[in-house]
Amino acid sequence: MRNFCNYYIILFWGYFLIFSPQRIIAQEPSNKGNMYKTLQLSSLDLSQEEKLFRKIFDEALTTPQAYIWLEHLCKKIGGRLSGSQSLEKAVQFTKTVLDTLGLDRVFLQEVKVPHWVRGEEVAWFEQKGKKIKVNVCALGGSVPTQPQGIKAKVIEVKSFEELRQLGEAQVKGKIVFYNVKMKPTHISTFRSYGEAGFARKQGASEAAKYGAVGVIVRSLTTRIDDYPHTGSLGYQPHVPKIPAIAISTKDAELLSQTLKQNPETEFYFKSLCQNLPEATSHNVIGEIKGSEKPDEIIVVGGHLDSWDLGEGAHDDGTGCVQSMEVLRIFKKLGIKPKRTIRCVLFTNEENGVRGGRTYADLAAQNNEKHIFALESDAGGFTPLGFTIGDTPEILEKFMPFKLLFEPYQICIFKTGGNGADIAPLRNLGTQLIGFMPDSQRYFDHHHTQIDTFEHVNQRELQLGAAAITCLIYLLSEFDF
Amino acid sequence: MRNFCNYYIILFWGYFLIFSPQRIIAQEPSNKGNMYKTLQLSSLDLSQEEKLFRKIFDEALTTPQAYIWLEHLCKKIGGRLSGSQSLEKAVQFTKTVLDTLGLDRVFLQEVKVPHWVRGEEVAWFEQKGKKIKVNVCALGGSVPTQPQGIKAKVIEVKSFEELRQLGEAQVKGKIVFYNVKMKPTHISTFRSYGEAGFARKQGASEAAKYGAVGVIVRSLTTRIDDYPHTGSLGYQPHVPKIPAIAISTKDAELLSQTLKQNPETEFYFKSLCQNLPEATSHNVIGEIKGSEKPDEIIVVGGHLDSWDLGEGAHDDGTGCVQSMEVLRIFKKLGIKPKRTIRCVLFTNEENGVRGGRTYADLAAQNNEKHIFALESDAGGFTPLGFTIGDTPEILEKFMPFKLLFEPYQICIFKTGGNGADIAPLRNLGTQLIGFMPDSQRYFDHHHTQIDTFEHVNQRELQLGAAAITCLIYLLSEFDF
Repeated sequence: MRNFCNYYIILFWGYFLIFSPQRIIAQEPSNKGNMYKTLQLSSLDLSQEEKLFRKIFDEALTTPQAYIWLEHLCKKIGGRLSGSQSLEKAVQFTKTVLDTLGLDRVFLQEVKVPHWVRGEEVAWFEQKGKKIKVNVCALGGSVPTQPQGIKAKVIEVKSFEELRQLGEAQVKGKIVFYNVKMKPTHISTFRSYGEAGFARKQGASEAAKYGAVGVIVRSLTTRIDDYPHTGSLGYQPHVPKIPAIAISTKDAELLSQTLKQNPETEFYFKSLCQNLPEATSHNVIGEIKGSEKPDEIIVVGGHLDSWDLGEGAHDDGTGCVQSMEVLRIFKKLGIKPKRTIRCVLFTNEENGVRGGRTYADLAAQNNEKHIFALESDAGGFTPLGFTIGDTPEILEKFMPFKLLFEPYQICIFKTGGNGADIAPLRNLGTQLIGFMPDSQRYFDHHHTQIDTFEHVNQRELQLGAAAITCLIYLLSEFDF
Repeated sequence: MRNFCNYYIILFWGYFLIFSPQRIIAQEPSNKGNMYKTLQLSSLDLSQEEKLFRKIFDEALTTPQAYIWLEHLCKKIGGRLSGSQSLEKAVQFTKTVLDTLGLDRVFLQEVKVPHWVRGEEVAWFEQKGKKIKVNVCALGGSVPTQPQGIKAKVIEVKSFEELRQLGEAQVKGKIVFYNVKMKPTHISTFRSYGEAGFARKQGASEAAKYGAVGVIVRSLTTRIDDYPHTGSLGYQPHVPKIPAIAISTKDAELLSQTLKQNPETEFYFKSLCQNLPEATSHNVIGEIKGSEKPDEIIVVGGHLDSWDLGEGAHDDGTGCVQSMEVLRIFKKLGIKPKRTIRCVLFTNEENGVRGGRTYADLAAQNNEKHIFALESDAGGFTPLGFTIGDTPEILEKFMPFKLLFEPYQICIFKTGGNGADIAPLRNLGTQLIGFMPDSQRYFDHHHTQIDTFEHVNQRELQLGAAAITCLIYLLSEFDF
C-alpha cells in the first residue's frame, strides 16, 4: 500500500503546474495581503455575475424558446441544403423571429452558394449469388454516375498510402472502398472524426489518380448501424472527377467480409445527383448595439444550412437557435451589453463555407472590429465547456471566470477548435471561441436521416444556450 | 468597461478560497521548495496511474462487453420486478457471466422480497361530454381499486399543506390529484426529483387521512410527454390504504385545465394490481481477493431489479453491467488489487431495498470490513464525476487525484448522494461513493415503458464503466 500523504502533496503541486494560476503567484509574489483584501472588497462584484448567471440559466430552463424555434426549423422547414427553397424559408423564418426580439438591427447578407442536389440512389453487391441491397448516399458535391450506373470490382483500402502501394495495376477500373474506421478511444469524437475524414474529403481524387471509376466511403461514426452519412468532398484540379458514395458502417462491415471471401465481388451503384448553377442565399444577422463600445463586435453564431437527409437538428439547427436565444435572453433580462453582440446565422457551411467567408470579407471591407467570435456547431448536447482562443494567453486571462460556470457543471476551458464559419475572421485578429457540448452522441446523427428534432433534448439544448449567453456576457463586459 | 486586472487577481484568490488546496498551504507553509522537489521526483509515479487510466479507457471503448451484457438483460430478459421470473433469470444470467470472468469467488445471497404485480389499468375523465382516455400506471405497492373501479370528483393540490387547508370538508369522497411539477431550474435533475417526490411516496396516506378515495400523481419528469412513470409508495400504519396511480405530464396538464373549467369533473380509474406473498430473490456477488489487504472490501454495485414497465435499462441495468465490467477490466488488464473488490448486484432496490439491507446485515454478522462502497444508479450517461463520502474530509484527501480524471472530461468531485442499496453500509463505517453521470435525460426514461436498451448509448455506458474502474483502482491502492 503506498503512502497517500506524499501523493497528496505531490499532486497538489501538479495541480498548480498544470493550471495557470501559479504563474500569477510568480507575477505578484509580494502583495498577497493586498490581494486578499481586494477579494474581500470585491466578492460583492463577483456575486453580481454569479446572480446574473443564475438568472440566465433560470430563464433558459423555464422558457423553452430555443426548443420551440428548433421544432419549427426541423418539422415545418426540414433539411436546408444550400440552394434549396427550404434554406431560404429558414432565412425568412429566423429573420422574422429576430425582428420580434426588439433588437437594434436585423439584416441579411446576400451570399452566392453552390447548388448541388441529390438524385436517385441505388446500390447492391452480390454475395453467394444473392443480391445484397445497400443503403447509400452520395457525398455532397459528387458528380453523378452514368444514368445506368456503374458496376465494377472493389478494392478495399484503409489509407492513401495503401492506395499508392496498390497503384494503377490494382486500382484501375475498380471502385475504391475506403473502409476507414473512426478511432473509438479518443474521448472527443470530433478528434476521431478529424483523423478519419480524409477518405470522404479527398478520397475520390486520390483514387481517380490511379484510374478508379468510383469511390465508396465507410460512414463516419463509431456506431455500427444502418445509416449512411453524407458530407462534402473536394475534387482536385486536373484529376478526373469520379462519383463517390457513403455506406453505413454495418454495410461496410458486410462488404469487407464479402471481399475477404470473394475478392472478385462486383459492386453496382447509381447516383443521379446534379450540380446546378449557383443560387442566392443569405446570412441572417441580428444585433444589440453596445452601450459603451458599440464598435467592438462579438459574434455568436451557428449555420442555418444543413444536409438534405435529415432535418439539420444537431447540425446545426441547435447552434442557430442557441445563438438567437442569446439575444432573446439579453433582451428579456434587460442586459445592456457594453460591446455589440451579433447573432449570425451563416449560410452554406456544409458545402462551401461561403457564408462565413462573405461575412469576414464584408467585415474587413467595413473596417469592423470583431474582437470575439463564438460558434455553436457541435450539437445541442449538455454543455461541458468552451475552447477559448488558439493560444494560451487569452485562456489564461479567462481562467478565473471558470468558477462562475462550475455550479452549472461546465468545467472544461482550453484552447482548440472553434467553427468553420468563424475561422475566416481569424485574419481580422478576432479571437475564436468554440462551444463544447458532450460529444459522445454527435456522430450517431451527423449528416444522416436521423439528425432530427426528436433526438434533441430540451434541457440539454437550453443549458447550452444559457452557457453561451453567460460567456458572451463576460466577453462583453470585461477586457481580455 | 470594468478593469479586468483587478478581477483577475480577485478571482484567482476566490479560486483558492473555494477549493481545498489552500488549506494545505496553511498546513505546509514553510517547505514549498521541498514540495516542489517531491513533485519532480514523483511525477514518474503519477504517470503510472496516468498510463493505467488510459489502458482502462481503451479497453472499455474498444470492447463493448458491458453494452452486450446490457442488451441481453434488456432484450432477452426485460423488466425485472421483485418476485418476477425475469428477475431470477437475471440473477442466473449475471451469475453465469461472473463465473466466466476468472474471479476468486462468485456467490448468491438469498433475499426475501415483496411480490407486487400490476393488473389491468383503465382510466378516463369526461371533458365537454367526451370521454378522454388517460394512460395511467399504478404506483408500485398500491392497493387495487374495487374490480369495477372507482369514479369520483377530483381535487387538485400541489402540497400537503394545501391538502391540510382543504381538509375533510373538501377532500372526503374525492380523488386527490397531486399536480406537483419537478422544478426545471436545478442543474441536477435528481435534486428536482428529490424535492417533488413526496406526493408519490407519501401522498396516498396523507390524502386518506382526509377521506380521499384514491390518488392521482403527476409523473416525475420535467418533460411534457405521454408516459406515466411508476415508482414505489409507502402507506402509513393505521391509515386506510387507498389506490394510487400516476398519469403522464401531458395528461396532468390536460386534467388540470379541465378541472379549472369544470371543478365537478369526475375521474374514473380501475387498477387491479395485487400484493402476493413474499418471494425469494438473490443478490449476485463476484469478488477479486485483495493481494495485500484481502480483509478490506470495496463494493461496486448496481441493482438488478427494475420496474416492470420498461426493460430496466438506465435503471439500473447500466449500473449492473458497469459493476461487472469493473471486474472484467481488472482481470483483462491483469490488475491485482491490493484490497478486495466486490461487484454486488443488489436485488429489490425499487420496492423494498431488501437486497441492500440483507447485504449490510450479513456483512455485519460476518465482521467484514467494508471501507468503500460505490453505487452506479443514476443512468448510463456520460460520466461527469463522483460524490465522495458524506463529509469533506475524504473528499479533500481525494482531490489531488482529480487530475487523473480530467483528460476524460470527468471534473466534478464533491460530497453528496450515493445509492439506496449501499446506504445501509453506512452503519458499518463504510465510506459511500456515488457515480455521477450527466443527469439531463435520466427522468425522460425513469420508471417508464421507454427505459429501454435503445436509449443507452454504447460510448456513454462504456465511458462510465471505465471511470468507475479507475476510481475503484485508486481506492484499492491508496489510503484515504
